[in-house]
Amino acid sequence: MKLKEIANIVGAEFSGDDIEIVSMNTLNDASSDELSFISNAKYIKDIATSDAGVIIVDDNTKKYVPSSSVALVVENPYISMAILSKHFAPPIEDNSQDDAKIGEGSKVSSKAEIANGAIIGKNCTILAGVYIGSNSVIGDNTILYPNVVVYRDCKIGNECIIHANTTIGSDGFGFATSKMGEHTKIYQNGNVIIEDDVEIGSSTTIDRAVFGSTIIKKGVRLDNLVQVGHNCEIGEYSVMVAQSGTAGSTKLGRNVVMGGQSATAGHLEIAPFNTFAARSGITKSIKETNQTFAGFPLMQHRKWLKLQSKIAKLLKT
Amino acid sequence: MKLKEIANIVGAEFSGDDIEIVSMNTLNDASSDELSFISNAKYIKDIATSDAGVIIVDDNTKKYVPSSSVALVVENPYISMAILSKHFAPPIEDNSQDDAKIGEGSKVSSKAEIANGAIIGKNCTILAGVYIGSNSVIGDNTILYPNVVVYRDCKIGNECIIHANTTIGSDGFGFATSKMGEHTKIYQNGNVIIEDDVEIGSSTTIDRAVFGSTIIKKGVRLDNLVQVGHNCEIGEYSVMVAQSGTAGSTKLGRNVVMGGQSATAGHLEIAPFNTFAARSGITKSIKETNQTFAGFPLMQHRKWLKLQSKIAKLLKT
Amino acid sequence: MKLKEIANIVGAEFSGDDIEIVSMNTLNDASSDELSFISNAKYIKDIATSDAGVIIVDDNTKKYVPSSSVALVVENPYISMAILSKHFAPPIEDNSQDDAKIGEGSKVSSKAEIANGAIIGKNCTILAGVYIGSNSVIGDNTILYPNVVVYRDCKIGNECIIHANTTIGSDGFGFATSKMGEHTKIYQNGNVIIEDDVEIGSSTTIDRAVFGSTIIKKGVRLDNLVQVGHNCEIGEYSVMVAQSGTAGSTKLGRNVVMGGQSATAGHLEIAPFNTFAARSGITKSIKETNQTFAGFPLMQHRKWLKLQSKIAKLLKT
Repeated sequence: MKLKEIANIVGAEFSGDDIEIVSMNTLNDASSDELSFISNAKYIKDIATSDAGVIIVDDNTKKYVPSSSVALVVENPYISMAILSKHFAPPIEDNSQDDAKIGEGSKVSSKAEIANGAIIGKNCTILAGVYIGSNSVIGDNTILYPNVVVYRDCKIGNECIIHANTTIGSDGFGFATSKMGEHTKIYQNGNVIIEDDVEIGSSTTIDRAVFGSTIIKKGVRLDNLVQVGHNCEIGEYSVMVAQSGTAGSTKLGRNVVMGGQSATAGHLEIAPFNTFAARSGITKSIKETNQTFAGFPLMQHRKWLKLQSKIAKLLKT
Repeated sequence: MKLKEIANIVGAEFSGDDIEIVSMNTLNDASSDELSFISNAKYIKDIATSDAGVIIVDDNTKKYVPSSSVALVVENPYISMAILSKHFAPPIEDNSQDDAKIGEGSKVSSKAEIANGAIIGKNCTILAGVYIGSNSVIGDNTILYPNVVVYRDCKIGNECIIHANTTIGSDGFGFATSKMGEHTKIYQNGNVIIEDDVEIGSSTTIDRAVFGSTIIKKGVRLDNLVQVGHNCEIGEYSVMVAQSGTAGSTKLGRNVVMGGQSATAGHLEIAPFNTFAARSGITKSIKETNQTFAGFPLMQHRKWLKLQSKIAKLLKT
Repeated sequence: MKLKEIANIVGAEFSGDDIEIVSMNTLNDASSDELSFISNAKYIKDIATSDAGVIIVDDNTKKYVPSSSVALVVENPYISMAILSKHFAPPIEDNSQDDAKIGEGSKVSSKAEIANGAIIGKNCTILAGVYIGSNSVIGDNTILYPNVVVYRDCKIGNECIIHANTTIGSDGFGFATSKMGEHTKIYQNGNVIIEDDVEIGSSTTIDRAVFGSTIIKKGVRLDNLVQVGHNCEIGEYSVMVAQSGTAGSTKLGRNVVMGGQSATAGHLEIAPFNTFAARSGITKSIKETNQTFAGFPLMQHRKWLKLQSKIAKLLKT
């Protein structure tokens, strides 16, 4: 999309050379043909070093934009970004002219739907009711049980097993809210990448990234009814037990175990080899490794046990 | 169904004019051609003013029935109501002779199933594996992702987005239990109404009402794996984060935010513009607005934070 | 599979008569043509009385194996068992040459998939997008709403109602983890048995057993988004409210009520007629009956209420 058109959509003034903008991205990841934005004061530090061709700012933040980027000044950059995100969203289907490709030895049910541009590897089993969106890629020897849905542009590795009614790549939960409380959808133009040897239970949901990728690394095991928010990264061989969840942009290191019904807040980093007991509530990043935690607020598991006995004593007071 | 037949099914005595009863309803909402019931002493106050043509009562409550209504006296009105509810349930499919109608510009996958009598508006996208039940109505510009299921007689507005594997209008969780512990299903003969500009995540479940409607109002955002019980009303622009839920008949005002894994009890009224932190447990109605709550039992969020630091101090005792 | 081949796969020494091993099972349930294993010291007591034809052990436990069984000595019996489980897993589909049988009066959508060897009783309603796996059996008068998935070899009784997008018989969450943290899948070669008059909500997940059966007994009511782990047994007329779950091998007695978002740990036995308030966390077996519990840690509900008032008083300290 032309910069002039972008400026027009968000009602920003713009003079100078018109350029072609191909997509939106974060300040850190955007390149010279991409558009970025500043929606939160804590990211101001990222403006100066951003390679973004265009940055949407407000009056207070325009001064931080380096001369190498064009600043588009609007009242509410977050809402403007949301409005623009729709313009960068590809069509839901048929955004490829290529026929789907099915690898040798793969069995695909006639009741599955494989959209244009999708590529399925060798010796896969794709059962009835599965949907694989445009341009999604499935590795070799992977099994998709009935009614699994993989949205467009996602990647699933080799030797994966995904159980029935699970959804890979639905939109992350993103919207900009006006002062009046009205929401504008932030189109989720990223994807989901699932590496090799991952098993995912039934009715689990893994959201696509707003920009970039939600990543499920090699060897991960997700149980049933698990929620993985957009832009999360689940480290190698990590385990999430039934009904647990990670909020957006949280990264688990390798071999993290999240017990049943446990959950994290968003934007956390959890070091490798930590275990969280059932129903843990994790609201802060964790740098230590090889620990066992419990509770909400979270604490060391042995401390939680001690605390519960102290609490029980209150009954005798 | 004829009143005589109804009396016969529940084993109640009945003499007088036989009348045609068209459906069942609550005491407050029933009209003269409808049947109602009294199952809980707290609703006795509603008997005198009820317009119900027929009211199922027990020996203790029959005296409250006004002369304008016929009283059918049974041992256990709740179980009798459950037994009768089956007789008022329409067939699951084909309860319409009309072909489905698809509006101009709408794309409906050949792998979707649109039952008789369903109406789909203009410019909708209905992907593979979607099921739309008899007489359900979908507005304009609405997107149903693969394997979304909309049961019969529901309404979905314009500009809605419903993600994969989500269910709209499955039966509310209703049954009458005998003294021996055996359950009789209460057929859920209401529906679900979703207003305009609503986005719903994947594997979310919204139950149809037992009578009347479960309502999701304009601009609501529901995340993945969210549960909305029968007869709930989710107010305009309210937000329910992943794995949260509302039990039956609870009403959220506008712009209520329910954090991840939070939940309400049933039959509550929550005033507008309140926010509930992740894993809040809401068991009482809330009349204040613009507050932030947390915890289970629920309290003001700032109080919850203070309480947690007090609890942490127990470890030092 | 021949014993010689089994020994070869796990790298165990073996001399003696080769025998045909037909399946794997627990020490207690295995018979002379079955293979079992010892993975946890607490099951050593079961070795002496086991009828298993072959038992996989390590150096420390081989001495407990009776002369009636062959001992295969490996370094890590649990991982060896996981490796072998794959060899005993039947093909996902087409593990029957028989055409599916549909009983008189049953309506099966042309968009449903009924695999070979499946048997559907009389007067059933099988809606679009339903998948019924090889050799699964459905009783009479049962309704499967759209996109319900029943994996192979499961049994569903008469008069059952299963709501949309629910999964019956997906793999239990089982894997053996190496010292390096890498997981080997334990194939779940058991099944799910659902007895008569069971109603199950939408997007609920019931895992198949690793050996034997996960059992949902007569008259049970499961709400939406409920998780039942592998090898659980849910007693007659028990009720599980939305977003609750039972971890593997837990048995609920009859008429147990689990409130919304409550959960159990694995391997528990819960006596009949107990009620657990919403969000209860049950970590120990319960022998008393007719009680109401709450909290996590769990306690009598009345005690929980008292404790909460004591905790609230901390704010005044």
